[in-house]
Amino acid sequence: MTRKLTTIGFDADDTLWHNERFFRITQDRFAELLIDHVPDNVDSHTLAERLLAAEKQNLGRYGYGVKGFTLSMIETAIEVTNARVPASVIQELIVAGQMMLSYPIELLPSARAAVEVLSESHRVVLITKGDLLDQERKLAQSGLGGLFDGVEIVSEKTPEIYVDIFNRHGDGPERSMMVGNSMRSDVVPVIEAGGWGIYVPHGLVWEVEYAPAPDHSPRYMEIPNLGALPALAAEIT
Amino acid sequence: MTRKLTTIGFDADDTLWHNERFFRITQDRFAELLIDHVPDNVDSHTLAERLLAAEKQNLGRYGYGVKGFTLSMIETAIEVTNARVPASVIQELIVAGQMMLSYPIELLPSARAAVEVLSESHRVVLITKGDLLDQERKLAQSGLGGLFDGVEIVSEKTPEIYVDIFNRHGDGPERSMMVGNSMRSDVVPVIEAGGWGIYVPHGLVWEVEYAPAPDHSPRYMEIPNLGALPALAAEIT
Repeated sequence: MTRKLTTIGFDADDTLWHNERFFRITQDRFAELLIDHVPDNVDSHTLAERLLAAEKQNLGRYGYGVKGFTLSMIETAIEVTNARVPASVIQELIVAGQMMLSYPIELLPSARAAVEVLSESHRVVLITKGDLLDQERKLAQSGLGGLFDGVEIVSEKTPEIYVDIFNRHGDGPERSMMVGNSMRSDVVPVIEAGGWGIYVPHGLVWEVEYAPAPDHSPRYMEIPNLGALPALAAEIT
Repeated sequence: MTRKLTTIGFDADDTLWHNERFFRITQDRFAELLIDHVPDNVDSHTLAERLLAAEKQNLGRYGYGVKGFTLSMIETAIEVTNARVPASVIQELIVAGQMMLSYPIELLPSARAAVEVLSESHRVVLITKGDLLDQERKLAQSGLGGLFDGVEIVSEKTPEIYVDIFNRHGDGPERSMMVGNSMRSDVVPVIEAGGWGIYVPHGLVWEVEYAPAPDHSPRYMEIPNLGALPALAAEIT
């Protein structure tokens, strides 16, 4: 008898290891560096809003990842200071971006155990957005690389992308599951593609990744952490 | 009888379409923007050297592509002016980088014809380095996307990467050929992996991509342009 579920896709950032916290630290650093160079009516909250607006505006040209984020910080720094920001501050922003490219990988609870046990029974595929080299670095440092049957670094997580990936690595989206902390990127489009979408909230979510939960779908599930995933996957047989 | 050559990999930038010329235009713009802000002993040649040094230095953290190049321009601008560059100049550098992300795709002579005819007889795979989203944009605009059996955007072109790609898309490197304008990235590592490496010089080469020709290898060939490729591939049967 053929099994209903044969393939499991894992998101990487904030699903297997911490990531968003380093963006938050860098945003705080951004505000700290800029606050003395902006007009009096600009506070750190406004700075955060302007940066987020620039990030959103630039997604279509830069895509996801630290390099585009760094460029958005520099652009915002120039704009909010009416081009009066000193070059030394911009140099600090470049350094802050470079630090993000070398932060240590800290696995989330149960991440290794979940991937290990599921890789024995299912095909497991890592599916992530971001800068190619940086995502590869993080996977290498995570020590999980050898467990995955496939690694896909993509520019956007759409239903079409999931159909393509689960056709190539598995038996199509109907027999596949995606697990991640982004409702918008990991859960909703997979369900739209015909697969299971498993939401594992992380706590810190980048605003761009918000989406309403697809509560209406029987293929939508939420678990508190990856420790609950093997039992959930075992139920779908 | 099994054919000796079943799979052909194509490099993208400066093999199928122009690319390096836009880096050169942007480097000229960089020098033009900076020249009034640097000490008298710094000329445009020195500026180009400093920028290249920063690019090389940053390859390990930023990888290839326009976003990293833009960050290297900004970093160099700050360094060569001892942090006296005005923010307005840095804003111009950001704009110059963004223009590179939207330049129009101009196919090289015979590129379309070569891929079209070879896609009838061989598996054809696009293999390119650079920023994920930007490489996807260029492929989409080239109109060649539908001809390829596979597209691989990689962080580095090593023998191991070619082995993996030609195993997945073809019948291994021994029955595969890579075609490109970079001796270092498209030709030498493929031959090392056991495949054919076909050099198609473009004229403009980024210094980082230089390597000595592997003249000793019977699997190394040079052709003046892609118009010569179908006949060459047909000879290997």
